[in-house]
Amino acid sequence: MAYLDHAATTPMLPAALDAYVAAARALGNPSSLHAAGRGARRLVEESRERIAAALGARPSEVIFTSGGTEADNLAVKGIFWARRDADSRLRRVVASAVEHHAVLDGVEWLGRHEGAEVTLQPVDELGRVDPEAFAELVRAHAGEIAVVSVQWANNEVGTVQPVAELVAIAAGAGIPFHTDAVQAVGQVAVDFGASGAAALTLTGHKVGGPVGVGALLLGRDVSCTPLLHGGGQERDVRSGTLDTPGVVAFATAVEAAVTSREEHVGRITALRDELVARVRAAIPDAILNGDPDQRLPGNAHFSFPGCEGDALLLLLDAQGIYCSTGSACSAGVAQPSHVLLAMGADDRRARSSLRFSLGHDSTKADVDALLAALPGAVERACRAGAWKTPR
Amino acid sequence: MAYLDHAATTPMLPAALDAYVAAARALGNPSSLHAAGRGARRLVEESRERIAAALGARPSEVIFTSGGTEADNLAVKGIFWARRDADSRLRRVVASAVEHHAVLDGVEWLGRHEGAEVTLQPVDELGRVDPEAFAELVRAHAGEIAVVSVQWANNEVGTVQPVAELVAIAAGAGIPFHTDAVQAVGQVAVDFGASGAAALTLTGHKVGGPVGVGALLLGRDVSCTPLLHGGGQERDVRSGTLDTPGVVAFATAVEAAVTSREEHVGRITALRDELVARVRAAIPDAILNGDPDQRLPGNAHFSFPGCEGDALLLLLDAQGIYCSTGSACSAGVAQPSHVLLAMGADDRRARSSLRFSLGHDSTKADVDALLAALPGAVERACRAGAWKTPR
Repeated sequence: MAYLDHAATTPMLPAALDAYVAAARALGNPSSLHAAGRGARRLVEESRERIAAALGARPSEVIFTSGGTEADNLAVKGIFWARRDADSRLRRVVASAVEHHAVLDGVEWLGRHEGAEVTLQPVDELGRVDPEAFAELVRAHAGEIAVVSVQWANNEVGTVQPVAELVAIAAGAGIPFHTDAVQAVGQVAVDFGASGAAALTLTGHKVGGPVGVGALLLGRDVSCTPLLHGGGQERDVRSGTLDTPGVVAFATAVEAAVTSREEHVGRITALRDELVARVRAAIPDAILNGDPDQRLPGNAHFSFPGCEGDALLLLLDAQGIYCSTGSACSAGVAQPSHVLLAMGADDRRARSSLRFSLGHDSTKADVDALLAALPGAVERACRAGAWKTPR
Repeated sequence: MAYLDHAATTPMLPAALDAYVAAARALGNPSSLHAAGRGARRLVEESRERIAAALGARPSEVIFTSGGTEADNLAVKGIFWARRDADSRLRRVVASAVEHHAVLDGVEWLGRHEGAEVTLQPVDELGRVDPEAFAELVRAHAGEIAVVSVQWANNEVGTVQPVAELVAIAAGAGIPFHTDAVQAVGQVAVDFGASGAAALTLTGHKVGGPVGVGALLLGRDVSCTPLLHGGGQERDVRSGTLDTPGVVAFATAVEAAVTSREEHVGRITALRDELVARVRAAIPDAILNGDPDQRLPGNAHFSFPGCEGDALLLLLDAQGIYCSTGSACSAGVAQPSHVLLAMGADDRRARSSLRFSLGHDSTKADVDALLAALPGAVERACRAGAWKTPR
């Protein structure tokens, strides 16, 4: 078995699972006042401090959520509502065209349901937002933009955005900038304070922590209307009983991912570069998508012209090679990737793509297994494609 | 140590924790198409079926969420939005005055932010919504009510509502009825299909499952606008990567709680009745709050006239007795309980209250420990209260 789908979810680190179990065996709701509750509260607050320290944030800026989707929705909708309520001219929401659906669909809902003006900022053929064009947009609409959301790195093609430049442009106009860093944490250097971003999304299960736990780093002076009302936890921005075991396991994983990042990146980049070189050598037609340089270390994303990505995925799956045609979150929906389309690919090329993503337990054996299976699979899938599609 | 705060959170069952660990060691995002993803998907769908079977729902009616707060917010806001968008006259939201803050604060936000008309239905001195009065409300406003939310059982005083009667009244007028059954599942018989409710909230950590996992049971024909947009999971009503280990552990706990309910209720009711009788014998002033008959089996809630509940809680805590002054979710906020105030208690009586709640691992030793400590604590707390408050 070769698991090449770490960008969809990566195995929970044994230390994170152990931390989960230890905390789950303890008892107490962190909102309870008695000693059991205070013990749980201590674990939560220590976890908050560890995550803050790992990512250049203040502890009070860590808002625990149920994961990346919730954090993205909270940032985009919550900041939009808070800003629009404070100034009714602030009705515009800007997001890049290659955001994850958790941002894109939330933004689209704000347009459809909440009267927002939506601007999707285009990207170039490598998936990058152009800072010049973004600056122009901000100049043209500064007095209307409630919130901007541009991901730190793309989940499909791995392109890392020029976040620092983009934040500086937004900040210069007083516009809060949210960035979905779900794929970036542990892969590239992420420092919330230094970035100047108003809000940043991360999640547990992409860094070796549990599914169902994530966080929004939210600047202390950034107003954000809650999505979930209730007991008033998390600065009143996110109510709900705090998941002590999940939070402790999450902090363990974030700390481990950030601490071991440089070593991890060195190893994984070399492995990924080997994968890319060997795929290109074996299948000369293959096109590497995304930015070849400003790219997540574990990401390799190819189009195989003339093949159906779905067919290829299933042929590889039959040989125990696990990868993805795009975001797992929208897998199953037979749509070409909005990311590749935004990068200028046509429908056929977009549908011919596969993502291989490496993680902390990936080895050369995984790459060997892929290369043993891929050429035959591509040949079969292309034959099927040729038979199906008139040339 | 005597843990008498099971209504805040109850220990995770060993079987549920084992199920979590086993699933966490497996791998795969349930939205991925390869074998690892399909394996995770199978675990999620089996869990969905187990929960549905335990609670009289169809599997497709189980929408996994991050817990009770999210499920409550989703039901109240989501059904309100969907109904109002379909018919702009449907702007009224009805909730009982004793709902959990996850409902009440969501409803209040709909009033403040979304133009809803809010009606809080009063309760009697035992905490019950009167079906007659509710029927009158429905007759007066049938054409305006978007959604009704009345809890199955109260988290503070343990009163069980006449849900079947209330649902029948709402259903007669075509109004979707949501019920927060977080405290009810495993304690009283809960059958979603038979209840006729449109939506029902439950959560893991009140039934021996994990924190951070819950569900909204949502009738198949009930429209509900998502709070979290994204990958389109859960009938497109709740996006976000499904937490396979959490969901499996949750299903294990729900199944266990429902299967063992009758035995559990017999044992816990007897223990609770003993607790109540012995508290009354030791502190003749003590007043049992809530419905003496239609009541959660594990709940004992008292006012101790002349005492401050907070002081009492800390004195008991110092002796290893863990209980609560109200909902853990709003503990820490020095507010008298909105539940007791709605039941007609004055501020002083509301502030003099403590909740003792029993759970699956409660024993006679817990009750003995409480009774060894309580009379002394009440005496000290009353002395402090008398000194502080002019008579």
